[in-house]
Amino acid sequence: MLNTLIIGASGYTGAELAAYLQRHSEIHLSGLMVSAQSADAGKCFSDLHPQYKGIIDLPVQPLTDVAVAAQGIDIVFLATAHEVSHDIAPQFLEAGCVVFDLSGAYRVQDAAFYPQYYGFEHTNTQWLMQAVYGLAEWQADKIRQAQLIAVPGCYPTVSQLSLKPLIEADLLDENMWPVINATSGVSGAGRKASMTNSFCEVSLQPYGIFTHRHQPEIATHLGREVIFTPHLGNFARGILATITCKVKAGVTAEQISQTFKDAYQNKPLVRLYDNGVPALKSVVGTPFCDIGFVLKGEHLILVGTEDNLLKGAAAQAVQCMNIRFGFDETQSLL
Amino acid sequence: MLNTLIIGASGYTGAELAAYLQRHSEIHLSGLMVSAQSADAGKCFSDLHPQYKGIIDLPVQPLTDVAVAAQGIDIVFLATAHEVSHDIAPQFLEAGCVVFDLSGAYRVQDAAFYPQYYGFEHTNTQWLMQAVYGLAEWQADKIRQAQLIAVPGCYPTVSQLSLKPLIEADLLDENMWPVINATSGVSGAGRKASMTNSFCEVSLQPYGIFTHRHQPEIATHLGREVIFTPHLGNFARGILATITCKVKAGVTAEQISQTFKDAYQNKPLVRLYDNGVPALKSVVGTPFCDIGFVLKGEHLILVGTEDNLLKGAAAQAVQCMNIRFGFDETQSLL
Amino acid sequence: MLNTLIIGASGYTGAELAAYLQRHSEIHLSGLMVSAQSADAGKCFSDLHPQYKGIIDLPVQPLTDVAVAAQGIDIVFLATAHEVSHDIAPQFLEAGCVVFDLSGAYRVQDAAFYPQYYGFEHTNTQWLMQAVYGLAEWQADKIRQAQLIAVPGCYPTVSQLSLKPLIEADLLDENMWPVINATSGVSGAGRKASMTNSFCEVSLQPYGIFTHRHQPEIATHLGREVIFTPHLGNFARGILATITCKVKAGVTAEQISQTFKDAYQNKPLVRLYDNGVPALKSVVGTPFCDIGFVLKGEHLILVGTEDNLLKGAAAQAVQCMNIRFGFDETQSLL
Amino acid sequence: MLNTLIIGASGYTGAELAAYLQRHSEIHLSGLMVSAQSADAGKCFSDLHPQYKGIIDLPVQPLTDVAVAAQGIDIVFLATAHEVSHDIAPQFLEAGCVVFDLSGAYRVQDAAFYPQYYGFEHTNTQWLMQAVYGLAEWQADKIRQAQLIAVPGCYPTVSQLSLKPLIEADLLDENMWPVINATSGVSGAGRKASMTNSFCEVSLQPYGIFTHRHQPEIATHLGREVIFTPHLGNFARGILATITCKVKAGVTAEQISQTFKDAYQNKPLVRLYDNGVPALKSVVGTPFCDIGFVLKGEHLILVGTEDNLLKGAAAQAVQCMNIRFGFDETQSLL
Repeated sequence: MLNTLIIGASGYTGAELAAYLQRHSEIHLSGLMVSAQSADAGKCFSDLHPQYKGIIDLPVQPLTDVAVAAQGIDIVFLATAHEVSHDIAPQFLEAGCVVFDLSGAYRVQDAAFYPQYYGFEHTNTQWLMQAVYGLAEWQADKIRQAQLIAVPGCYPTVSQLSLKPLIEADLLDENMWPVINATSGVSGAGRKASMTNSFCEVSLQPYGIFTHRHQPEIATHLGREVIFTPHLGNFARGILATITCKVKAGVTAEQISQTFKDAYQNKPLVRLYDNGVPALKSVVGTPFCDIGFVLKGEHLILVGTEDNLLKGAAAQAVQCMNIRFGFDETQSLL
Repeated sequence: MLNTLIIGASGYTGAELAAYLQRHSEIHLSGLMVSAQSADAGKCFSDLHPQYKGIIDLPVQPLTDVAVAAQGIDIVFLATAHEVSHDIAPQFLEAGCVVFDLSGAYRVQDAAFYPQYYGFEHTNTQWLMQAVYGLAEWQADKIRQAQLIAVPGCYPTVSQLSLKPLIEADLLDENMWPVINATSGVSGAGRKASMTNSFCEVSLQPYGIFTHRHQPEIATHLGREVIFTPHLGNFARGILATITCKVKAGVTAEQISQTFKDAYQNKPLVRLYDNGVPALKSVVGTPFCDIGFVLKGEHLILVGTEDNLLKGAAAQAVQCMNIRFGFDETQSLL
Repeated sequence: MLNTLIIGASGYTGAELAAYLQRHSEIHLSGLMVSAQSADAGKCFSDLHPQYKGIIDLPVQPLTDVAVAAQGIDIVFLATAHEVSHDIAPQFLEAGCVVFDLSGAYRVQDAAFYPQYYGFEHTNTQWLMQAVYGLAEWQADKIRQAQLIAVPGCYPTVSQLSLKPLIEADLLDENMWPVINATSGVSGAGRKASMTNSFCEVSLQPYGIFTHRHQPEIATHLGREVIFTPHLGNFARGILATITCKVKAGVTAEQISQTFKDAYQNKPLVRLYDNGVPALKSVVGTPFCDIGFVLKGEHLILVGTEDNLLKGAAAQAVQCMNIRFGFDETQSLL
Repeated sequence: MLNTLIIGASGYTGAELAAYLQRHSEIHLSGLMVSAQSADAGKCFSDLHPQYKGIIDLPVQPLTDVAVAAQGIDIVFLATAHEVSHDIAPQFLEAGCVVFDLSGAYRVQDAAFYPQYYGFEHTNTQWLMQAVYGLAEWQADKIRQAQLIAVPGCYPTVSQLSLKPLIEADLLDENMWPVINATSGVSGAGRKASMTNSFCEVSLQPYGIFTHRHQPEIATHLGREVIFTPHLGNFARGILATITCKVKAGVTAEQISQTFKDAYQNKPLVRLYDNGVPALKSVVGTPFCDIGFVLKGEHLILVGTEDNLLKGAAAQAVQCMNIRFGFDETQSLL
């Protein structure tokens, strides 16, 4: 049994992590923590997330001293703000923990990216260089040897899983940048009070047009420019991405289908649609990313969908952990 | 044209008031204001409420000096916090304005009620004594002569409109307190950021059991004890109240039906259901209170419904104004 | 491994049953079936319920011949229409299967109940007499020896679990009938096309006032008259019941609390709230029934909540099966 | 006062038409009708649409004989199925009525379009030739002289209003087909029972990829190929379209802004956003189409939104009528 900590357990992603880890046969859930200044520090986990009453009644403790917290701990999940992850990851790493960071703090190796898109200087560039990007289906070999896994989140996961097979197989026309229109549930904004998330204010709308930090993250890891337009949807959970692109002359639907099958055979958390495309409801509450497509002439529409808190966060983080430690890839997830 | 101010125009009720008054042929909308310390002060009304872009593009001004604000003003609507209404109503009244207060500050004439249920001492008891309770269908004669009208809000309006005819006609068994179960849309909590109103946190739940301030308000004005259990519903607008009570021996459905008809003939904003009961959707976006009932033996279920922001707030306030100034009762409302 | 059939697997409850049974270590999911005339016959389960793609890809077969279907089968779950359960349960029973019927066909032993409330004559009265009512927390001893378990559904489960401890302990004033106001998610109406369930038509509304078949079911099994008013809510899943009643003179909150604790100690699927009451979100997606209460003087408000498809249907059926066959009571449920 | 009929008054669009026309000072609402075989024939309008109880209590009559129905009628609105409009429009036209058809039956003048996209042969090609496409902001001169106005619906209206100014001004790069991703509320599917519209089944999903009939309608009237991907959203009303395209080299944001202003000055039902883009809630319940954009280099994102039942149906039809008969363009709409 590996001793495991979750930092940021008060949030929606932290809660999903706790649920997965609590039932994982190889993991001992050693503690649930939040930043020391959090208003949730000291509360009972199941008072914050009442669906877990009787299942996970641990206290949510303030993280006051990383060195103390790290004692005897094998694995740490950081479901914390980007700056917090940036600051505390090295301390846990230096204490020997394997760290799965669900924030954006270690996802892009170009340090110049952080002041522009996250508003802080990255001062842990040595760790940034060593971090492995945890897109699980594509990075398993590197994940197995990493100490710091930067788990990609909601939009980047579904966007890359949908596009990467076609880019790797060189099927896409490079003259048209893929147009990614994606709509996320409100839980993507985290568990906090804000006017934007207020029940009466939420309605379908695009945001962060041309400025969202996930655009360069996706482009960097795909090695291809994209146009990415995120939308807030009026639902709690899930992401659906509709991606419009062009294939090279002569590419057929059979080729595309086979390319996906080749990429995701033996990848249990990606489900492919042979006919048609997935709906949001297909994945909400599941750890899957579902992908379908329609081709007409050179025009290709890809549709990818996932639960933003699961395959787009907690499930992928646990999947990375399973890969890293040699457990069954879907252990506790299915 | 009567010069009219709305204080608290940034909120949901204030916005509905603005929409009604802007299209009222006898009213000049002289200004939209908010408390001086509000973060919305200085913003454009239609940036806060974008559905009114091009319709009402007035600035939302800070209320810094009541005496100045009151100059040349005939009518003031207070869609403000209870304490704010408590404090500023007298100044507007002394400046000669007719005041329609949508807060709870002047609804119950027993000053002892305020420390217990609202958390402040009522220090304007002279005005409190003069305030007329603006339950429009029942108080028209008094409203016509009042300078300060305390407009009842969401739960009290639908509860009283449903029960009052039967109590006045002495049809209810006094041994059973009417059991009012009511569910309100989230807009009832106002336009503000809070965890309670957060999109991902809202779900059907009762609150304020035995302690909600509307229980004594309803009981006082009905002259009858009630059990009142409010619920938060997962919808933006509307209230539905299901009221269980007992009739006196021998009371028939025909009597109940006739009693309602007598009470609400010539009352254009109450709609009665002869067969069956209303649904929430019947009233959302309308200024009506809809009422239906089912009788079985001595057991009576009343169902009342209204839009909490309209008949439960802004529409009733405008209805009171129409009555007060001798306009058609539904002017600008239908 | 016990061979198990689900009849009615195309519906929402059938799907939840399939998910539970598929992961149950003692169960072999031998087949998924629907009525022979169902439009879903022949389809793949995961095309009907796409969240299970890759998990349960079995065909949904038409039930054309019960005798054939029953061969080699140990356990049958009937998630079928009341009339269908009425008709086919005896055939499965006579073939030696243990039958868990989730319909209303065998829940009330007075045969006269069926023509009035279900619109059909009950012609299998011998089986009706032998059926055990599967309110799991209260009927375990009988369930262990039954061949036919009539699993109570949504409203009756939450209503009885909330009231029964107090009635058994004789704490309730008999002069006031408990007033049960309950609101159910739309999934309670089943998986089918209808105007009532249509997205744009759904809004909070009471229905079946004084005429709903669950009123006599609850009253019969509690041995106490109740007033039961169901409501359709604008959410997919879950039921919340707010129950207003009176306690006998002198009954204290401590007594009520202790009574609940005594009733539900060692009952893992009932969760009690010491302070406050549950919200709908506490139970959606879980197999629990949550119960809380507030007492003021003699007035008592009980709040019970459950997922209508789980503790109010599939989870309770599996719980009954676990009890019946001596498995851990929460096997596959938690 | 012009005598006016609505055919198809039982649907959501028909109801909105009735509400607008009932309060229009120049219109006499002569009758509400439905197809003779409709299950709603003979019902009271306000039983079908209870929000109008007391406002519009007319019977919904079966249309059994067009010649009889047309007697004394000046204006007919057809909110009917495409085939029904196709069949009955000529009879009303020949009786001298001015017809506003909200179906797709007369929107595209190429008769070959109908078998492919609507599944029927167009046999009224003379009227098809004479029909004027009622995109109100662009066709006013033709509408003023037309007898048959084919009012465009939801997706085509918002798509064309967003793109047409830029195409007319020749600002768009012709090498990239505009990518229109649009999400519509469920009301767009009409008022009917279906699994697709069922409350528990609705979730965000694309449909009709590359095959939706609105793609050629938009392309025809824009004179430009487009990629159009419609989505079903989990909300009742409204459409939001996010359109990705490329501008010609050197085109600036100022040019785009000025082009929109020039196109829509004196067009009261199009609202332009100088900074940022609209959200769905900005237009729900209003007759407006709101348009905003963001430009980065050559990449342009347009965001258009409207209430699919209003500017995307009933409001535009009434706007066309106002234009046709010389009334104020927004009469009864604002």
